[in-house]
Amino acid sequence: MSATVKRIAISGASGFIGRHVLAALQQHDVEVVALCRDRASLADWQARVEVLAFDHASPPEQAYALMGRPDVLLHLAWQGLPNYYALHHFEQELPRQYAFLRQLVAEGLPALVVAGTCFEYGLQSGPLGIAHLPQPVTPYGWAKHALHQQLHFLARHSGISLSWARLFYMYGAGQSPHTVLSQLEAAVVRGEPCFNMSGGEQLRDYLPVADVARQLLALALDAGRPALCNICSGTPISVRKLVENHLAQQGWDIPLNLGYYPYPQHEPMAFWGIPDWFAHKNT
Amino acid sequence: MSATVKRIAISGASGFIGRHVLAALQQHDVEVVALCRDRASLADWQARVEVLAFDHASPPEQAYALMGRPDVLLHLAWQGLPNYYALHHFEQELPRQYAFLRQLVAEGLPALVVAGTCFEYGLQSGPLGIAHLPQPVTPYGWAKHALHQQLHFLARHSGISLSWARLFYMYGAGQSPHTVLSQLEAAVVRGEPCFNMSGGEQLRDYLPVADVARQLLALALDAGRPALCNICSGTPISVRKLVENHLAQQGWDIPLNLGYYPYPQHEPMAFWGIPDWFAHKNT
Repeated sequence: MSATVKRIAISGASGFIGRHVLAALQQHDVEVVALCRDRASLADWQARVEVLAFDHASPPEQAYALMGRPDVLLHLAWQGLPNYYALHHFEQELPRQYAFLRQLVAEGLPALVVAGTCFEYGLQSGPLGIAHLPQPVTPYGWAKHALHQQLHFLARHSGISLSWARLFYMYGAGQSPHTVLSQLEAAVVRGEPCFNMSGGEQLRDYLPVADVARQLLALALDAGRPALCNICSGTPISVRKLVENHLAQQGWDIPLNLGYYPYPQHEPMAFWGIPDWFAHKNT
Repeated sequence: MSATVKRIAISGASGFIGRHVLAALQQHDVEVVALCRDRASLADWQARVEVLAFDHASPPEQAYALMGRPDVLLHLAWQGLPNYYALHHFEQELPRQYAFLRQLVAEGLPALVVAGTCFEYGLQSGPLGIAHLPQPVTPYGWAKHALHQQLHFLARHSGISLSWARLFYMYGAGQSPHTVLSQLEAAVVRGEPCFNMSGGEQLRDYLPVADVARQLLALALDAGRPALCNICSGTPISVRKLVENHLAQQGWDIPLNLGYYPYPQHEPMAFWGIPDWFAHKNT
């Protein structure tokens, strides 16, 4: 029952991933409505896509009609990052997100593709796939997992198509200043004598954000086929190697002060994604 | 840090289990405040315990002070049963329950003992213990599991003591008319020619409700020692044998029309609890 997608809505369109999705959409003959909280944040895109400003935390009535009744919503918006431990994620963000998406479904939205997170897997190690049960250990990972479960019940109840994509790590233009590669660049720009980082031995799964955007878009354009999947490379890389590769690509030269920061508590030392998709019906 | 409990609050006190907890409390030298939505529902208990009427869905400000600042709340209230598939359980009941309990914690409640359910385990078969990850398949089982997780994060954040007790099946005075033993009695009273039931081969875990109440009370009176546990017999019994035992005990004689109803979809054919307690700190 995979219907042709003629109109697609993107929430969180002004964010890191959202902007790369807008860029990837330029290759497709499809109407786009970009949702963001503040029109000004997408000023550079307003000539090319329809921009609609509202906050998913307090959506207007008839939000789905205002969006021009899209065939699918690619839902990327999430407030409160990067503080993974804040109770905000399930106390405020989860109920707001669910209420917003439920309203759209009640108003007629037939298909949803939602960004999940590798933090749904919690402290499990090694290659992780959808056969691994989520065991989140942070309020952020928990809230994403909970949104997935609640939308799963809603999809079964309402008959909509739901795809859920667990995003692993990514890098690229516009990334958060909290990420290791942003901090590396900042240290180089500031002319620091060395780059303070963790031991760098932890194994992670990184994709260029443009690849992440293309994979999310592929799910959205095939939204009649519900899927549960990871969005990942499938190839672990140590954080040290990631940093060294980036230094080489950029032609930068800065000594690495390995072991300056401790390893994070909310992540295992080594985990990466299994990239195969698994299409399943929400029945 | 197990402090002496001098005052205990019971929510859902007028319910099936709540009334048996009030009865069990008569053996203990402890102040009791019984919470219910409607004072009239505990008219028979008002001479023996303090009754406080309010709805956890819309609690008053300073609810904890109104309750007389108990040392522990044994929280049994849950609205919307027995419709396990209603989205109500996570759309309305979960956020209301969490908001109510969070308010009490913010106002000073130091310890919580909450009734969970064997439906948190979902469709897993055989003997189930806390080493089995919850995999709920109904909105009810999901909402209870979600409340547990959210309270776990809240307990870690606030330093309160949290105990979670997954209740299996039970029987006894005041049980719901939906239960098999209530329906058996109704058929006998109506003089039906036979008792229409399922095949009766499914294996379940049943306790007398008075035993359930005593175990919950033991957890509440030791509320400084957080626990995650089942409340169960540990001994599977077929539903057919349960019914036959009850007929023998009551001296009733009615033929069983086995196989009249199909087996339920939301439960496995055979599951029972592992009764050993596991005390753990919420840190």
